[in-house]
Amino acid sequence: MRIDALQTPALIVDARRLDENLRAMSDALPGPRLRPHVKAHKCTALARRQARLGHPGFTCATIREMEGLAAAGLGDDLLLANEVVDARRLAALDARVTVAIDSPETLDAAADAGLSEVLVDVNVGLPRCGCAPEQAGALADRARARGLRVRGVMGYEGHAVGLPDRSERERLTAESMQQLLAAHADVGGDVVSAGGTGSYDCNRVATEIQAGSYALMDTAYDALGLPFRPALYVLATVISVARSYAVADCGLKALGMDHGKPSIDEADVWFCSDEHVTFAPRRKLCVGERVRVWPAHVDPTVAYHERMRVVEDERVVETWSVDLRGW
Amino acid sequence: MRIDALQTPALIVDARRLDENLRAMSDALPGPRLRPHVKAHKCTALARRQARLGHPGFTCATIREMEGLAAAGLGDDLLLANEVVDARRLAALDARVTVAIDSPETLDAAADAGLSEVLVDVNVGLPRCGCAPEQAGALADRARARGLRVRGVMGYEGHAVGLPDRSERERLTAESMQQLLAAHADVGGDVVSAGGTGSYDCNRVATEIQAGSYALMDTAYDALGLPFRPALYVLATVISVARSYAVADCGLKALGMDHGKPSIDEADVWFCSDEHVTFAPRRKLCVGERVRVWPAHVDPTVAYHERMRVVEDERVVETWSVDLRGW
Repeated sequence: MRIDALQTPALIVDARRLDENLRAMSDALPGPRLRPHVKAHKCTALARRQARLGHPGFTCATIREMEGLAAAGLGDDLLLANEVVDARRLAALDARVTVAIDSPETLDAAADAGLSEVLVDVNVGLPRCGCAPEQAGALADRARARGLRVRGVMGYEGHAVGLPDRSERERLTAESMQQLLAAHADVGGDVVSAGGTGSYDCNRVATEIQAGSYALMDTAYDALGLPFRPALYVLATVISVARSYAVADCGLKALGMDHGKPSIDEADVWFCSDEHVTFAPRRKLCVGERVRVWPAHVDPTVAYHERMRVVEDERVVETWSVDLRGW
Repeated sequence: MRIDALQTPALIVDARRLDENLRAMSDALPGPRLRPHVKAHKCTALARRQARLGHPGFTCATIREMEGLAAAGLGDDLLLANEVVDARRLAALDARVTVAIDSPETLDAAADAGLSEVLVDVNVGLPRCGCAPEQAGALADRARARGLRVRGVMGYEGHAVGLPDRSERERLTAESMQQLLAAHADVGGDVVSAGGTGSYDCNRVATEIQAGSYALMDTAYDALGLPFRPALYVLATVISVARSYAVADCGLKALGMDHGKPSIDEADVWFCSDEHVTFAPRRKLCVGERVRVWPAHVDPTVAYHERMRVVEDERVVETWSVDLRGW
């Protein structure tokens, strides 16, 4: 099918750019040095591409993502890098399952469900999950006392990965990883799991990097000057044209908006409504023309769509289900 | 099932409040005076409630919404209040279909597909779809020349409906409706379709009001002091507690963020990540406790969820599929 024949809005993956992004990351972080985070694309077909490039393990943010990867045969080493208070669905998976814990309650949830492996999640500066570094050792002892195998630590420098200034990003990442190493000394284990797309090459401490956005990218990450290019956009149709602006059929239900407005080539975006984007094009557009709408944040954009169309030379070469949505 | 047994995040409808909101609106705008907009809830089960209260017609924003209502037997009078350049799927519906047109191209799309009825969409101040008021008459003539029945006009005062100051909202609504009436004089037909939840009682010109948000409401609309109360929240589980904040499992993929952060009872919300909300609670919370996360914008929140749980007295009394998602 030609891309022109698609109904809009349609989520499009630029096949070549995706391929370049995947290879660039695999060259930088080969094999188990990268544990791709699937929350950024929620798509087992894309995860399979990542696995074929030699990355044996995956990072997940939800139980549904874990279930989907396991069902797709990608369950060699799945990490739920998030806390859960009910781990029973994880225990039912035909996969190697590791779950993050940061409290006695989440530890007990893992043990009660019959899971065998955990990572101690350490707060390294982002006010989100993770125990204080000085509590990590005691939590690991308690986990071992409950029969769990403690594989090591994880700690996400999420307050650092998006900083456009590289030296500042490096400095904060290094500071966070010092905290994680201190916790690791108390916890033990082989794994120090951390990082993201923004720190993939400046986090030199983690044994594995949990990057996800690098595959599809977005306009927010693109500002960092990384060697990955935006490979995901929403194809939209111009449905109305006025003197100073045009309107296309891609709105708030097709775009994650937390990082701000999307971008349109050769245009200034004014605002989005539920099913519209109003923008001022720099060249004259006609009703029926197609435009490419680039999301500011890829993760919550993908989660709105049932499928992605993989496009090369204006042809749809594959259709991938966004099959890891929901919880 | 008790609400405690739900996995989280879970989209919850407060049954009593929904019922009160539906009745309050039906009392104010009985029968065909209200044409409920389904984009706000994307749920045929909820639309059926609205139909039972005596509203014969519905407003839609997408072809998928039109298809879903028709398939659910709610197709007595469906308005697609939006422009399309390919109307063939609409022509296949077993329903009375009216589509908005604002250009020769969208007019031709309707005629080419074999549709019979249109409304002329008029720009009344919001820079989005709609022709200029002075062009409406010529468009109607052209539509009739192509064999289409022109039912009247529509024009959405979207720049007015969200203004917290009531007098300003009234003033702008009246100004917009003057423009719509001028266009209507040139177009003819029985229908003057306009309005939204914020102008439901100050728009005295429209023959029918296209309100949708009133049913479930959100924190943005709640600031207007209307007689509708928020009836939709995301139930979330506290998964981590630190000294000054807590984290629950409801993030960017469970909430529309374009109107800003969600609210949590007795807490200050700091920020959302993909699957987390970090907040400072005013009372001590424990891991495993549940919190209610109130979205700032209902429409893009609902579009993330597969289903809504209708809850009364802490019990799930119905489960509704959000079956009008996608395009």
